[in-house]
Amino acid sequence: MNLILLFPSDFISCDRARLTGRRFEHIRDVHRAKAGDELCVGVLDSKMGQGTVAALADDTVEMDVRLEAEAPPALPLTLIMALPRPNVLKRSLVCAASLGIKKIILLNFFRVEKSLWNSSALRPEAVREQLVLGLEQGKDTVLPRVEIHERFKPFVEDELPALVKGTLGLVAHPGTGTPPPQNVRGPVTLVIGPEGGLIDYEAEKLASLGFQMVDLGPRILRVETVLPYLVGKMF
Amino acid sequence: MNLILLFPSDFISCDRARLTGRRFEHIRDVHRAKAGDELCVGVLDSKMGQGTVAALADDTVEMDVRLEAEAPPALPLTLIMALPRPNVLKRSLVCAASLGIKKIILLNFFRVEKSLWNSSALRPEAVREQLVLGLEQGKDTVLPRVEIHERFKPFVEDELPALVKGTLGLVAHPGTGTPPPQNVRGPVTLVIGPEGGLIDYEAEKLASLGFQMVDLGPRILRVETVLPYLVGKMF
Repeated sequence: MNLILLFPSDFISCDRARLTGRRFEHIRDVHRAKAGDELCVGVLDSKMGQGTVAALADDTVEMDVRLEAEAPPALPLTLIMALPRPNVLKRSLVCAASLGIKKIILLNFFRVEKSLWNSSALRPEAVREQLVLGLEQGKDTVLPRVEIHERFKPFVEDELPALVKGTLGLVAHPGTGTPPPQNVRGPVTLVIGPEGGLIDYEAEKLASLGFQMVDLGPRILRVETVLPYLVGKMF
Repeated sequence: MNLILLFPSDFISCDRARLTGRRFEHIRDVHRAKAGDELCVGVLDSKMGQGTVAALADDTVEMDVRLEAEAPPALPLTLIMALPRPNVLKRSLVCAASLGIKKIILLNFFRVEKSLWNSSALRPEAVREQLVLGLEQGKDTVLPRVEIHERFKPFVEDELPALVKGTLGLVAHPGTGTPPPQNVRGPVTLVIGPEGGLIDYEAEKLASLGFQMVDLGPRILRVETVLPYLVGKMF
């Protein structure tokens, strides 16, 4: 928790926040904060700044909040990701949010196991929990938007054309021999397929929209490793 | 498990391996393999190739093994990492092994909690287990070597000079303003400090050996995110 994320409901006056639960425990046990200490804070979808510990009780902390800085710039990358297993989903959401990705689309592919669509990790509050962890890690306040598309074809035909327009469309797809580009200046739409890879129909559909297949070499990496690897390579 | 890693003890003849336990279950339940199916296999610290399923019983699988390919090239990067919390250590070892890193040094820093040195995740068999998971993920056979150095000063003074010689020494250190280099051609020695960062003494010691501090920008990333980010950036 490199930034303590505050919500409007935490404020008991215009510049004082009262925290309980997980954030209180973190401030007490990890920061080992005492009255007068300054901590990095930010308000959801708003500014960042300093919180000065005003009072610590058994189960609450109050902070005087001064907000002066903007959140760091968003990464100009839209992530379209095959729905992974719940644990991988959780880690990928934290990872994406910490990297500054602001739009994440979870999409069905042929090789996504159907049962995954019933996972409790897909519930809005579960998704939001991981995104908040990622913002706290990456020192950001702007919550990424997550869309869930359980059908490949209608999404790709009806929504993806407008989404990829004006961006560099890339698909991480082993075996194509084309390395990912470096120093991309503009926005990117990145597709990361399922564990078993794309089927030909899916690859062709994406190619027909101008997506380029990029190869990450002989190693197969986990989604939460591919993502920072490609972000490091491209931006 | 993109590659099934075989050990000399698995072989019941020169070209037939018999597997039980975790690998057997993976072949049965995830690959859903049947007799005649070919799976990607490799022998620890040796070649890679194909394993043809010869016989499946209730708790064993036998494969005819044909080895013809070399393991993918190692990443020319030595990772020196402040000992993290056990869960982070586990994920970082899997991540590093999957990326092709072959030398990992776990080092003490002032801000490493002393109790972490007693973690069971540091036991050789626990470390090896994570490295094997990383090789299975990344399709590699060459086990990384892991060294554990519980004292910063003697390691940095007595061993690090020889280690960093002829390599580009980098320290991920927020706030320096110098971005990491791209397209590094030669070997790199990369230091990733503890969660709270390096103290001045540690930064100065490393700088005196020629290490350059590199800044990853305003976001603070987890070790297992920093690592692929920097690998993507540099190689």
